[in-house]
Amino acid sequence: MAKPTQYVLTNLRIAPMIANGENYGGVIENGALAIDGEKVAWVGAAQDIPLDHRTWHSEDFDGALATPALIDSHTHIVFGGDRANEFEMRLEGASYEEVARAGGGIISTVKATRAASVDQLAESALPRLDALIAEGVTTIEVKSGYGLNLESERNMLLAARQLGTLRDVTVRTTFLGAHATPPEYKDRPDEYIRLVAEEILPQLHAEGLIDAVDGFCEGIAFSPAQMKIVFDAAQKLGLPIKLHAEQLSNLGGAALAASYGALSADHLEYLDETGVKAMADAGSVAVLLPGAFYTLRETQLPPLELLRRHQVPIALATDCNPGSSPLTSLLLTMNMGATLFRMTPDECLAATTRHAAKALGFADRGTLTAGQRADIAIWNIQHPAELSYRIGFNPLKARIFGGKL
Amino acid sequence: MAKPTQYVLTNLRIAPMIANGENYGGVIENGALAIDGEKVAWVGAAQDIPLDHRTWHSEDFDGALATPALIDSHTHIVFGGDRANEFEMRLEGASYEEVARAGGGIISTVKATRAASVDQLAESALPRLDALIAEGVTTIEVKSGYGLNLESERNMLLAARQLGTLRDVTVRTTFLGAHATPPEYKDRPDEYIRLVAEEILPQLHAEGLIDAVDGFCEGIAFSPAQMKIVFDAAQKLGLPIKLHAEQLSNLGGAALAASYGALSADHLEYLDETGVKAMADAGSVAVLLPGAFYTLRETQLPPLELLRRHQVPIALATDCNPGSSPLTSLLLTMNMGATLFRMTPDECLAATTRHAAKALGFADRGTLTAGQRADIAIWNIQHPAELSYRIGFNPLKARIFGGKL
Ligand SMILES: [Zn+2]
Ligand SMILES: [Zn+2]
Repeated sequence: MAKPTQYVLTNLRIAPMIANGENYGGVIENGALAIDGEKVAWVGAAQDIPLDHRTWHSEDFDGALATPALIDSHTHIVFGGDRANEFEMRLEGASYEEVARAGGGIISTVKATRAASVDQLAESALPRLDALIAEGVTTIEVKSGYGLNLESERNMLLAARQLGTLRDVTVRTTFLGAHATPPEYKDRPDEYIRLVAEEILPQLHAEGLIDAVDGFCEGIAFSPAQMKIVFDAAQKLGLPIKLHAEQLSNLGGAALAASYGALSADHLEYLDETGVKAMADAGSVAVLLPGAFYTLRETQLPPLELLRRHQVPIALATDCNPGSSPLTSLLLTMNMGATLFRMTPDECLAATTRHAAKALGFADRGTLTAGQRADIAIWNIQHPAELSYRIGFNPLKARIFGGKL
Repeated sequence: MAKPTQYVLTNLRIAPMIANGENYGGVIENGALAIDGEKVAWVGAAQDIPLDHRTWHSEDFDGALATPALIDSHTHIVFGGDRANEFEMRLEGASYEEVARAGGGIISTVKATRAASVDQLAESALPRLDALIAEGVTTIEVKSGYGLNLESERNMLLAARQLGTLRDVTVRTTFLGAHATPPEYKDRPDEYIRLVAEEILPQLHAEGLIDAVDGFCEGIAFSPAQMKIVFDAAQKLGLPIKLHAEQLSNLGGAALAASYGALSADHLEYLDETGVKAMADAGSVAVLLPGAFYTLRETQLPPLELLRRHQVPIALATDCNPGSSPLTSLLLTMNMGATLFRMTPDECLAATTRHAAKALGFADRGTLTAGQRADIAIWNIQHPAELSYRIGFNPLKARIFGGKL
């Protein structure tokens, strides 16, 4: 179809994920949705369409279900190489040392990423991005963190920005210089952290490449004290922060991030109630990553009951990365949220729409209501729960990006 | 392209899954593959192409990887309704009784299946079948077992056969009358088993609708003694058998099935060494179903080491069904085989090609070698391990069904 700037979608069931400004898991039967340019002009029951929208071009959707388009709020989708060989070696019984000797682990990805050009990085990420887009994703976050020096971190962020020009998708870039200590700083992590905080971060921020700042706070990565140095630098630049926290142990990373008003803390299997309360007070989103939980065969579950009790918004994301989560399906991520974490289908859908938007600092998307950006997914299903119920099935019928069908 | 009856695929990497009649996980570099009608005429390195094939039309595949097309050897893909509502109720905390009172469980699928026509059953299965076909599947097994009376079991098998006419796919039908006791035989399972063995099975066999006979041998389903009655009837009719065995407990079902020379025993989490040996002696395939393991959050792993030690061929299948495995991705099934069961990528690929063919009694497919049926999947990847490594990603480039590209 052409792209009229004003049109109405009719014969829809609509899960707006909001009603009267409140969270809402219900469905509007026989609904209609008016789009004006890039924005939603009106959502409601068909018989209530305002008079001035009734002359607009209309498109019949045959009873399909409309939801906010999906948002993947935590990815490492830009990287060089892959780690299939390492995956195979491990399953064939190779020890950690043997894998490392064969050049495996995160450092293999750093090497391959440093060896790639911006165009190569963007091109190799495209099939992964296309897999997400095919499932109704219109916004994704992309982290750096496999460059670990100025030039390669820049290349990753440039590649991420390029993805947003190659496809109809909004890309949010997150600077993850504090992902791992690069080989050339082996045994000098503090020096590397100073480099990140004092040189790489300010420079790439000055180049307009950074939307948020992230780190990996863990025994095998950086300490809370090291992360504080990076966060102080981010705060000085006015950049929002996020953190990989409490994935393998409880270092109090989520509470630290919350003290900086973090957009989110992510992973969180080992989060305790103190951390949950700090996140609730700060309004930080808990971004859960069941793909990594599944791949690592983790048994420690994130504290769902505590997060619910303290009303911390919960997002779900693919964590798409070549090592611990080579996952490019957000629908499967929702099924994993339900199956592995026992989240309800309502929670799983909020986790990839409303709460995912919040985890990225967006107020203009993630729900379907007048004034929001017209990012919409339309599905060949009856009920929103079907999105989490099926495994490896994509019922997408149509995808609208900024009003563009 | 047109469909020449004789053509050569060039510039391929080829994982034939066989060499000199033996299992083989290697790759032929710079390979070529000649197709004559429905069959593979020749496979090997490009420089060795026999002279008489060099004049055939040839098609360049740009370095892509060819494997035997995938085979889903255990599905319940034909059924009425869905169970998303029950999935949601359970996650929202409903008890087993509440779900049952709301009409949940297998009986809800039996009701919906009985209410559907053959055409409706086939039509509702098509999107699921298409999801499998999109991943390079060319052969699937489809079980009955939600009709549980003559008419509805017939409808399911007719719908399964219809799928094979609606799409380029080979369908193998398995009669699973002994899936559950239908409501009208409540507390009279022996009577129902007699009905299955003496009336429904012989009648549907006479109608040419049955390729194999299966049952569900479990505390919550039928005992070995009851299954024996069904197997004796199958044997009299000359039909091969299969069995859902040792999924939730060890009743010795696999050994029983093996004593009838079963094509396969399926699930097998609780299989012991006696059962493994019986399967090895009978040449039965172990069909593992990680989708159900995952959905039910099972912790008892199938005995991989024992199966390997006794050289029982291992297949992996979706078990696609509306309750315990609403899974329509055989690639994801392979990833689950690797991630959850610690199978190697080589084992996972054999499990959906060579061994899956054996589980269905096919000798003419599942490997790429001269004389085999030309069912071929061609992938945009470098190495076969990538098929198991990625999660929710489909790298299929082309699919050849009986020589038809
Ligand atoms: Zn991450
Ligand atoms: Zn089954």
